[in-house]
Amino acid sequence: MTMQWTISELTDRFNGKCLTGSPETTLTHLCTLDDGSPGGIGFFADARYTAAFYRTQASAVLVAKDFTPVAPVAAALIGVEDPYRTFFLLIEEVQQQRMAMQSCIEFPSYIGKAVQVGENIYRGAFSYIGHHVVIGKGVKLYPHVYVGDYVTIGDHTVLYSGAKIAAYTEIGSRCVIHAGAVVGSAGFGFLTHPDGSYKAIPSVGKVRLEDEVEIGANTTIDAATVGSTLVGKGTKIDNLVQVAHNVQIGKHTGIAAQVGIAGSTKIGDYGRLGGQTGIAGHLHLGDHITAIGRAGITRSFPKGHITLSGTPAFEHKKFLACYAQFKKLVPERKT
Amino acid sequence: MTMQWTISELTDRFNGKCLTGSPETTLTHLCTLDDGSPGGIGFFADARYTAAFYRTQASAVLVAKDFTPVAPVAAALIGVEDPYRTFFLLIEEVQQQRMAMQSCIEFPSYIGKAVQVGENIYRGAFSYIGHHVVIGKGVKLYPHVYVGDYVTIGDHTVLYSGAKIAAYTEIGSRCVIHAGAVVGSAGFGFLTHPDGSYKAIPSVGKVRLEDEVEIGANTTIDAATVGSTLVGKGTKIDNLVQVAHNVQIGKHTGIAAQVGIAGSTKIGDYGRLGGQTGIAGHLHLGDHITAIGRAGITRSFPKGHITLSGTPAFEHKKFLACYAQFKKLVPERKT
Amino acid sequence: MTMQWTISELTDRFNGKCLTGSPETTLTHLCTLDDGSPGGIGFFADARYTAAFYRTQASAVLVAKDFTPVAPVAAALIGVEDPYRTFFLLIEEVQQQRMAMQSCIEFPSYIGKAVQVGENIYRGAFSYIGHHVVIGKGVKLYPHVYVGDYVTIGDHTVLYSGAKIAAYTEIGSRCVIHAGAVVGSAGFGFLTHPDGSYKAIPSVGKVRLEDEVEIGANTTIDAATVGSTLVGKGTKIDNLVQVAHNVQIGKHTGIAAQVGIAGSTKIGDYGRLGGQTGIAGHLHLGDHITAIGRAGITRSFPKGHITLSGTPAFEHKKFLACYAQFKKLVPERKT
Repeated sequence: MTMQWTISELTDRFNGKCLTGSPETTLTHLCTLDDGSPGGIGFFADARYTAAFYRTQASAVLVAKDFTPVAPVAAALIGVEDPYRTFFLLIEEVQQQRMAMQSCIEFPSYIGKAVQVGENIYRGAFSYIGHHVVIGKGVKLYPHVYVGDYVTIGDHTVLYSGAKIAAYTEIGSRCVIHAGAVVGSAGFGFLTHPDGSYKAIPSVGKVRLEDEVEIGANTTIDAATVGSTLVGKGTKIDNLVQVAHNVQIGKHTGIAAQVGIAGSTKIGDYGRLGGQTGIAGHLHLGDHITAIGRAGITRSFPKGHITLSGTPAFEHKKFLACYAQFKKLVPERKT
Repeated sequence: MTMQWTISELTDRFNGKCLTGSPETTLTHLCTLDDGSPGGIGFFADARYTAAFYRTQASAVLVAKDFTPVAPVAAALIGVEDPYRTFFLLIEEVQQQRMAMQSCIEFPSYIGKAVQVGENIYRGAFSYIGHHVVIGKGVKLYPHVYVGDYVTIGDHTVLYSGAKIAAYTEIGSRCVIHAGAVVGSAGFGFLTHPDGSYKAIPSVGKVRLEDEVEIGANTTIDAATVGSTLVGKGTKIDNLVQVAHNVQIGKHTGIAAQVGIAGSTKIGDYGRLGGQTGIAGHLHLGDHITAIGRAGITRSFPKGHITLSGTPAFEHKKFLACYAQFKKLVPERKT
Repeated sequence: MTMQWTISELTDRFNGKCLTGSPETTLTHLCTLDDGSPGGIGFFADARYTAAFYRTQASAVLVAKDFTPVAPVAAALIGVEDPYRTFFLLIEEVQQQRMAMQSCIEFPSYIGKAVQVGENIYRGAFSYIGHHVVIGKGVKLYPHVYVGDYVTIGDHTVLYSGAKIAAYTEIGSRCVIHAGAVVGSAGFGFLTHPDGSYKAIPSVGKVRLEDEVEIGANTTIDAATVGSTLVGKGTKIDNLVQVAHNVQIGKHTGIAAQVGIAGSTKIGDYGRLGGQTGIAGHLHLGDHITAIGRAGITRSFPKGHITLSGTPAFEHKKFLACYAQFKKLVPERKT
């Protein structure tokens, strides 16, 4: 699939000006300055990319309206109010055209009994919908998606290929579940017999994702033993993250890749957890917590607006100061 | 699917007593005290949940036989010998009813040549069974499960949606393989050519899981180069764990989420590895080893009953004492 | 499937000599010395395995031509020039026979419009090929593989069960994508609204894997926002690794399990990243970088031939020396 714009169309739409080059130039794809190729359009808004700008192979570059090159540029230059914002609008346009392609049912796909499905949905080949499922309008189920019995999915939610939604899960509207994610797997809880062997505690609770939640590729979210594992509205979770049973995460929290959150921990709103952070079980982290990547959080921090690092984690600036001393525990050798 | 109990049925079954409320109250689901709702039954056995108990919206709560509330409670109270144990029996009852639902063949599903399949199994839609596979009785293969050629699976083992079992894998009885887990992928081993490029060492061995092993969602267990990667009886592995080729794990060991175990390492019986622990290759850890979450184990610890933390890991209490000094490397500022 | 060799066939092929035992002994499988069983052939080339050698249950063992046992051995001994190399050739032979088995189309499988497919490919049951896809010759798509629209895949590349390749991805020749890997998922990038909520930045770029790249089981590689996330020729990536959007990795770099690489970081050629290493975003690591397992790299290291550990990471030997002092921050108690 290829987009098609001419420079004159773009200057019309974005109230821009063709500073150099032909307004009839046809553009077919977005590109970075480094990765530019014929037909490509990029943007230049940050002086760190100056060298890349002057050697780009792109056919056109969005620049500020008052920009004047200080050396020859092969690309046509399109002056606009805000080059980055204009480029972002083009990114969204490409994305919308891509997502608009699919609204149909491919065969074979499986659908159980007593299912309610809204209008205008995509059910990819080999997608599976169990019994008593309720699916809103505009939902997209890519190939190999699994939706267990009694699941509910809100309007315009997208489940990419191979996402697995266990029975009883509740998913809000406008959520995105990326490929291979597992939502509602059994929690990791066991009773220990006197002989040291384990007996599993079944998870008969569920996972509830509020609206506009994003779950990354191959991330796993375990069902609650009883009740709900909860991810609040607008929270975004990256790839390969583990969220254990009965965890509760607030709204608009960002969780980077490979974070692990142990059972029954509560995290507030507007938090930010850097990649590979680990959080022990049964803790309570308040709103606005920030963890630097790789922090290991082992106690509750009920007050927010703190930045943590280290394992066990404490205040980030203090950690860095101690670590600077740690690096001096052995005198620097002259080599 | 909904359970249905009346309070009087429960008091009959568990030799309990309806302390307050109507014995004819109908209960439809299990709940926590915090998450209580009409029709829900919870339990109260720990003073930390006292506040939740007195404000619960559950219709009934299991309490100790001699319990007397000190304030009004909306819920009916059911006195039993051991509230937690009784609640656990109800959890198991719900789980058993859920798992009992599925014992059939959904279409389309794929089955190869020369396959032996026991009685009473579930083969979900889009499940795949290769050639020369042997599957015991009562096995459940959820939708999108992949079972490669020459695999054997013991009685009553459950494979959740999208679990992938590579050719030649041996799985015992009463195992649980959670959604998206990969068992038997090729090991990560390479010869280095003189020019620095790699040549893969094929994995022509296999994975062997003994009875009652549990493998978490999206966990990966690599096949041995030659011989077997082994997970011993009753060992439980959580989500997103990596077990490399030729690793051998003993019996009744618990391994939390995101642990990584490098190639050819041996771990004994009754170990406990906290989340995100990493273990280097070719090590030998004895029985009863405990690793605190996030430990990085870089040498063998043949004797057991030791608790490790830090990277490189050493004895946990000593680590904490050193870390306390580390935090004092910079004097505390008054702010 | 079983291989069949007699000892005399092997001595003929490898210019070897049957030192003890019958040349007519039939061998059916490869084994380790520890895991030996009747019909098995192992090798003995390292004195650390002497005890295992003398008690092995294997039927035959490859040894050096001039080897003389110092005690009775049950196994037949086959003298060859280089026992390990000969054993490796047998491993490759088994692997080739296994892989040769599958070259066919199983049903049902899905194929879109305007697809070009080369000769001699395997399309497993429930595999999905979208529209406008180009697939080279000898490619293997195991069951449940997903290939999105406009993907290109070079000759002799293998995609194991449940691998998910998002639209627009470019995969070279002779690559191996292991089970459950996700290539081309959306990047984790967001704009923050003034109220603290997030707006996703779509990924309209792609992933490009050059020739002979290997991607581990359940590993995730995100598509670029614009342009390409790149993995260079011959680079090998293990299981459960996260490669974020717009990362660029050079050639012949080895990346062990559970490594995480944040957005827009560039890594050079011939690097080696130990398991669970984390690398922050927007960094530049030069050629020949080595990270010890679990390193946390937070700044650029443009010059190569350095070995890093710790978080934040610095030179490995210096880290170990400082850590030795850290362990002395608390005096050793006599117990």
